[in-house]
Amino acid sequence: MVDEFDLIKRLFAPLTMGRPEALGLGDDVALIPGPAGRQWAVTKDAMAAGVHFFPDDPPELIARKLIRVNLSDLAAKGAEPQFLLLATCFPHDVEPDWLDRFASGLKKDCDLFKVAVIGGDTIATPGPLVLSLTAVGMVPEGAALLRSSACSGDHVWLSGTVGDAAFGLLVAQGEGKSLSETDASFLLDRYRLPQPRVALGPRLRGLAHASMDVSDGLLGDLGHICRASKVGAEIEAERLPLSAAARAALAAGLGDGLTTIVAGGDDYEILFTAAPAAEDDLTALSADLGIGLARIGRIVPGEGVTLVDKEGRVIKSGRGSYNHFSGGRA
Amino acid sequence: MVDEFDLIKRLFAPLTMGRPEALGLGDDVALIPGPAGRQWAVTKDAMAAGVHFFPDDPPELIARKLIRVNLSDLAAKGAEPQFLLLATCFPHDVEPDWLDRFASGLKKDCDLFKVAVIGGDTIATPGPLVLSLTAVGMVPEGAALLRSSACSGDHVWLSGTVGDAAFGLLVAQGEGKSLSETDASFLLDRYRLPQPRVALGPRLRGLAHASMDVSDGLLGDLGHICRASKVGAEIEAERLPLSAAARAALAAGLGDGLTTIVAGGDDYEILFTAAPAAEDDLTALSADLGIGLARIGRIVPGEGVTLVDKEGRVIKSGRGSYNHFSGGRA
Repeated sequence: MVDEFDLIKRLFAPLTMGRPEALGLGDDVALIPGPAGRQWAVTKDAMAAGVHFFPDDPPELIARKLIRVNLSDLAAKGAEPQFLLLATCFPHDVEPDWLDRFASGLKKDCDLFKVAVIGGDTIATPGPLVLSLTAVGMVPEGAALLRSSACSGDHVWLSGTVGDAAFGLLVAQGEGKSLSETDASFLLDRYRLPQPRVALGPRLRGLAHASMDVSDGLLGDLGHICRASKVGAEIEAERLPLSAAARAALAAGLGDGLTTIVAGGDDYEILFTAAPAAEDDLTALSADLGIGLARIGRIVPGEGVTLVDKEGRVIKSGRGSYNHFSGGRA
Repeated sequence: MVDEFDLIKRLFAPLTMGRPEALGLGDDVALIPGPAGRQWAVTKDAMAAGVHFFPDDPPELIARKLIRVNLSDLAAKGAEPQFLLLATCFPHDVEPDWLDRFASGLKKDCDLFKVAVIGGDTIATPGPLVLSLTAVGMVPEGAALLRSSACSGDHVWLSGTVGDAAFGLLVAQGEGKSLSETDASFLLDRYRLPQPRVALGPRLRGLAHASMDVSDGLLGDLGHICRASKVGAEIEAERLPLSAAARAALAAGLGDGLTTIVAGGDDYEILFTAAPAAEDDLTALSADLGIGLARIGRIVPGEGVTLVDKEGRVIKSGRGSYNHFSGGRA
């Protein structure tokens, strides 16, 4: 069993050759020079059947999730998405109808998010479907929102709601039979079709300090920000923004309750920190975009992420961030 | 069974949204704006164990081939390589020693070619090893060497020698027992460790018209140039540059003889066209770099690629370009 973070730190970090564009492989994108005072933010993700999605998921949704996961990375960096490069490794027996539906999913999201596929590769593999997407977004020079710029005293903010996708995964796995059909399908949708915050991300430039998207779990991802920024954080459990469906799932005893919410992945919301003085602007921005922005805690001196109740007492959480090499996810 | 080219044309081409950066998905790279009068050439390839390399190939060589295949694309476009983004999809049971050796292969070629890994993703898959590399190179604006700029009357040129890698693959598959150890190991090396023409490519800017690297087979790849440029081509079999080892393999009856040479893949040489007036400059460049440049034919009006003998009579070839979906390669 291999640890992804150890692998990156020990084996891949020396490959950056000290180039600043790599951000030490410690962020969600690389930043390379673009035209006229702008930079290209470049991110690359891979997804495999049986790990990141179910092999029998609708092909349209697999395609759209692939795009959205990458656009979420760009959004959290404050970048406007522009280009995609797509590598598809199809099983030998892939059906033409499957391919048509996969391509129609890609087309739908290219139209929706105004991004263009400008290159890639298509191969056949004897194994399961593997997809890799490189996404390129534009950001004014020096304006990208990094993991490393959180300051002690910052508020911690989260867009949308947290935990829906983790509960949605449990629903996909056949749990949550006692949930209403509406709640179950809401949670399942949140797992299967993330909503990358492309409208929000660029508007956070100049307001947010550190920022990243929540893909591996709220606490784990905030831990990344804390390590990169050399600070700690306290999250108030009572302030976590939950959907009605997530509350119903909690009440129904789905998963590990609060742990599922704070350590489950796939939310693809933006987790960011901002100076307390930015609160009014953020409240106005939330109203303007119609996207919830919840103040969920604060950055403190020290290290590590603590979950506290409203009296400030530490709540223990059983699970850390999801690690891709520690077991199957889907 | 799926046809890669049909897939790209029918399903993926509409995803370019008409953006010129994509070059209609008809070339080896996309070109996006860079700083100060330059462009980034971006290419992305995927490789799978059992298709593009043998699962038990030395991990250092797998890593280096991955890098070199992509640098070859950049070189043939006249671009200087700068950055890599690497997605690795490792089998769950990958050994730490394998990973160390894979990373040491990456490091060796990052040092050799002065490229830096600036991002990527690492996942575990239940299937075979799959790798995807995005390579980014720099080229002066408008100076990239495309597939579409061959002119009737151009000479057709090829760097290095052709057919070695195709014979090397046969050697890897256990054929060629009658070859000398020197010849067999030369051919095997040419298959396993391509030499991307990174020194040559940028020097061809302003001299070459159309250009691409030979990865799928000489005739098939020249066919791509012809289709993109709306011209035909005649190749003189007698002019094909062959290594001593390839001549020995031919004499030993390895593979399908001439067909293996002109339709086998993995040469990673630069195939380009140039005006007849460029011949002296190209001869001087060849001497300067110590890289063979052979004039192997000419661009003609019409369409299609013809292989002719020295009297100009057409030689029939049994096999077209390798198609990734038409069967296993390694």
